[in-house]
Amino acid sequence: MNYKMLGRLISQILLVEAVFMLPALFISLHDRQWGASKAFAYTILIIAIVAGGMFAVCRNAQKKIYAREGLVCVGVSWIFMSVLGCLPFYFSGEIPHFIDALFEIVSGFTTTGASILSNVEALSRGIMYWRSFSHWIGGMGVLVFLLAVVPVAGQGSGFTMHLLRAESPGPNVGKLVPRMGQTAKILYMMYVLLTILNIVFLMFGGLPLFDSVCIGIGTAGTGGFGIKNDSIASYSPYIQNVCTVFMILFGVNFSCYYLLLIKEWKAVFKDEELRMYIGVILGSVAIISCNVRGMYATLEETVRHVFFQVASIITTTGFGTTDFDLWPSLSKSILLFLMVIGACAGSTGGGLKCGRFLLLAKSLKRNIRQVLDPQKVSVVRNNGQMVSEKVLDNTNAYLVAYAFIVLFSFVLVSLDGQSMETNVSAVIACFNNIGPGFDAVGATCNYSVFGTGTKLVLIMDMLAGRLEIFPILILLSRHTWKRR
Amino acid sequence: MNYKMLGRLISQILLVEAVFMLPALFISLHDRQWGASKAFAYTILIIAIVAGGMFAVCRNAQKKIYAREGLVCVGVSWIFMSVLGCLPFYFSGEIPHFIDALFEIVSGFTTTGASILSNVEALSRGIMYWRSFSHWIGGMGVLVFLLAVVPVAGQGSGFTMHLLRAESPGPNVGKLVPRMGQTAKILYMMYVLLTILNIVFLMFGGLPLFDSVCIGIGTAGTGGFGIKNDSIASYSPYIQNVCTVFMILFGVNFSCYYLLLIKEWKAVFKDEELRMYIGVILGSVAIISCNVRGMYATLEETVRHVFFQVASIITTTGFGTTDFDLWPSLSKSILLFLMVIGACAGSTGGGLKCGRFLLLAKSLKRNIRQVLDPQKVSVVRNNGQMVSEKVLDNTNAYLVAYAFIVLFSFVLVSLDGQSMETNVSAVIACFNNIGPGFDAVGATCNYSVFGTGTKLVLIMDMLAGRLEIFPILILLSRHTWKRR
Repeated sequence: MNYKMLGRLISQILLVEAVFMLPALFISLHDRQWGASKAFAYTILIIAIVAGGMFAVCRNAQKKIYAREGLVCVGVSWIFMSVLGCLPFYFSGEIPHFIDALFEIVSGFTTTGASILSNVEALSRGIMYWRSFSHWIGGMGVLVFLLAVVPVAGQGSGFTMHLLRAESPGPNVGKLVPRMGQTAKILYMMYVLLTILNIVFLMFGGLPLFDSVCIGIGTAGTGGFGIKNDSIASYSPYIQNVCTVFMILFGVNFSCYYLLLIKEWKAVFKDEELRMYIGVILGSVAIISCNVRGMYATLEETVRHVFFQVASIITTTGFGTTDFDLWPSLSKSILLFLMVIGACAGSTGGGLKCGRFLLLAKSLKRNIRQVLDPQKVSVVRNNGQMVSEKVLDNTNAYLVAYAFIVLFSFVLVSLDGQSMETNVSAVIACFNNIGPGFDAVGATCNYSVFGTGTKLVLIMDMLAGRLEIFPILILLSRHTWKRR
Repeated sequence: MNYKMLGRLISQILLVEAVFMLPALFISLHDRQWGASKAFAYTILIIAIVAGGMFAVCRNAQKKIYAREGLVCVGVSWIFMSVLGCLPFYFSGEIPHFIDALFEIVSGFTTTGASILSNVEALSRGIMYWRSFSHWIGGMGVLVFLLAVVPVAGQGSGFTMHLLRAESPGPNVGKLVPRMGQTAKILYMMYVLLTILNIVFLMFGGLPLFDSVCIGIGTAGTGGFGIKNDSIASYSPYIQNVCTVFMILFGVNFSCYYLLLIKEWKAVFKDEELRMYIGVILGSVAIISCNVRGMYATLEETVRHVFFQVASIITTTGFGTTDFDLWPSLSKSILLFLMVIGACAGSTGGGLKCGRFLLLAKSLKRNIRQVLDPQKVSVVRNNGQMVSEKVLDNTNAYLVAYAFIVLFSFVLVSLDGQSMETNVSAVIACFNNIGPGFDAVGATCNYSVFGTGTKLVLIMDMLAGRLEIFPILILLSRHTWKRR
């Protein structure tokens, strides 16, 4: 393990975090919220000291670095970022318990949006902003940001590829352009543009700037932290529809946008994952709308709420306009199904991902054929291109790890004595980075019902889900820490 | 597709079924239950006509046969057996609806033990016997029986291996001896011996012969149909303990017994799957006993009930002595966990199987190592022997198919409007061939709450679970029915 290189990278990541925290400090200062201001100032100071110290020690790092350093770097940096990022909540006293503060920031960075707060509106604006902004940071990943702004020590595309692969969601990372740093830059540019567009559309609806920014960055990261206790329910239908549209847009693979930019319309139109994503959304809206008919005054209201909720769940955002825990069981089952599937690979959304679902289905189909014709060799294709066996292996391994983690977490969480529906949906909602579940963690409830142990389990689930399991699993493997 | 060979095999299988039905006919005649007697007589006649006709048409079948014929044969024969096997229930009027009768016999053959009857004690003894005996037939498989008694058209071990693999539970079928017919014979001999031993032990406890036989064959197949409305609850502690021990014994890989017979003690002692199985049982008993302390009068009673329930669920039998739906959520979660894991491969039990769980865990571990060291090639070992990549691929494909089927079934079942806990546990309990679930399908309830559509979904789930998915999936694949 090249610890020095690891330390150097993490120090750079922490520096980015400190810079990202500055706007929250300014908002607090502007609002004359001295408690929050001090909390941010202290935190920035602490981060600067930690990052500076690490950088000083690790300055003269060896440049040679392997795949495992990439994965370990991602896992460790997210844990560092979380532990330091939750300090403003804790120092300001607005979230008095450290584990609660940690839960909240991990929920933010992982774009889960599960909260332990019952009264969000009591937060000061600086804290509120930092809470929402954590979604934006986590959505595209801070390492990807780092790759976009600085040439990471010039190891070339091999190492940056490892980093990008570890932090980006999806079974295989599409290189948009040959150079990875350039790819990261393009990704972030599109991310910023779409976010600004979202904020502008929200402001057109009469929402104040601060609200528009918070909702906009929460949507961009497909996070789900709101700034009102009833999430998005009290906003106008226009605002709700804007959120619906942008949630769906942020759930699309960003490489599709790049293809649109370079005018490859046909490739986007034929993208199998995008087709499945749109198909699943429209199908779910149709079925649920029939299923909940009569629960809302008008057809427009029904479709608006259903579309919003479906978009919110499949993109793993987790905003709410209505209490879907009251919907009939078919609708709830479809929502649970959407929770598991998730958004597109290469988007800011979580879950299994539509692309991975397709790969699993195709490899299963291939396997059936091979049972029938053991001699025949057949390949799995995605958008007409052959998928390598290694990607298929990793996809299968992902599902195995997914099943194991969900199963074990479920047993651990049930130590808390909540209902089975609460436990199952809490684990699935956290692991897939959605936010709300059903029953005691339903749309109108929050995660404060759980004890400290359960919160720690859910924190690990959120991290494992956001980082697609392996960077976290690898931290727990003895093999990682062995000397070569 | 060699349809003639298929028809010939199925006609033989149906003949075995008709012969197996004779004792039930004799019991009904002895009891002067003319309705049930007529029902059995008619059914045997129908089976004889169907089987005879098929045999006449398919007599001169070509001997050349492939893997897919083996799988298709298993899938189709189980469907035939079920449709014809449920006729006595239907003709006698003791289960008036055909779909209910079909559900009950599929639940029997697949050793699930989920019932739509609320009053089992109202059944005539002949029907009761046939219901329990269906577990015994399904436990080891009627095709395996066929292989044991007749040399199946002499295709040699290649084809019989396919048949055995399709019907026997577990990731890879252990050949006990080089010839497969001989292997099947040894398996059935051990099965008969253990069953008789079980019946004798039950009779020692003062249980009448009929009751002992029904409970004994229900335990042997790890089925779970009882002959009392309260399952095993009203029997003496001795009887309950005998059931516990034999449930656990029937959940062990039968090749372990063969190894004991040929005095390979060490191999049995070192068997990883057996160690995991025993370990999981003891661990679960310990945790649940602590969790439910105070719910029963004495420690003896607590441990007895817990041991019984743990054995009943992990072996997927589904007998009950107490209403575990009232246990705290940790205990229920552990039971759900046991439902998914299931018994050992090569036993009569269902579920994912401990062996497959171990393989999945090992291949995941291997995958993590390969991410760390992409160059290094490592193999997965089981009991010190290298596991082929093909077996690992199939194991992964199994999990994928498992996840897909559970997810889709869950959505379909929730059309019925039951609670989420009911739906999740019903699908898992049927798919893993356990029987009772939680809430509306809990230990003291039955599956009559569901509508016809849901019952059909659960029937498919039970068949897919018992036959380990592929023989059923293959029936649905266009590829299977294409001409070569």
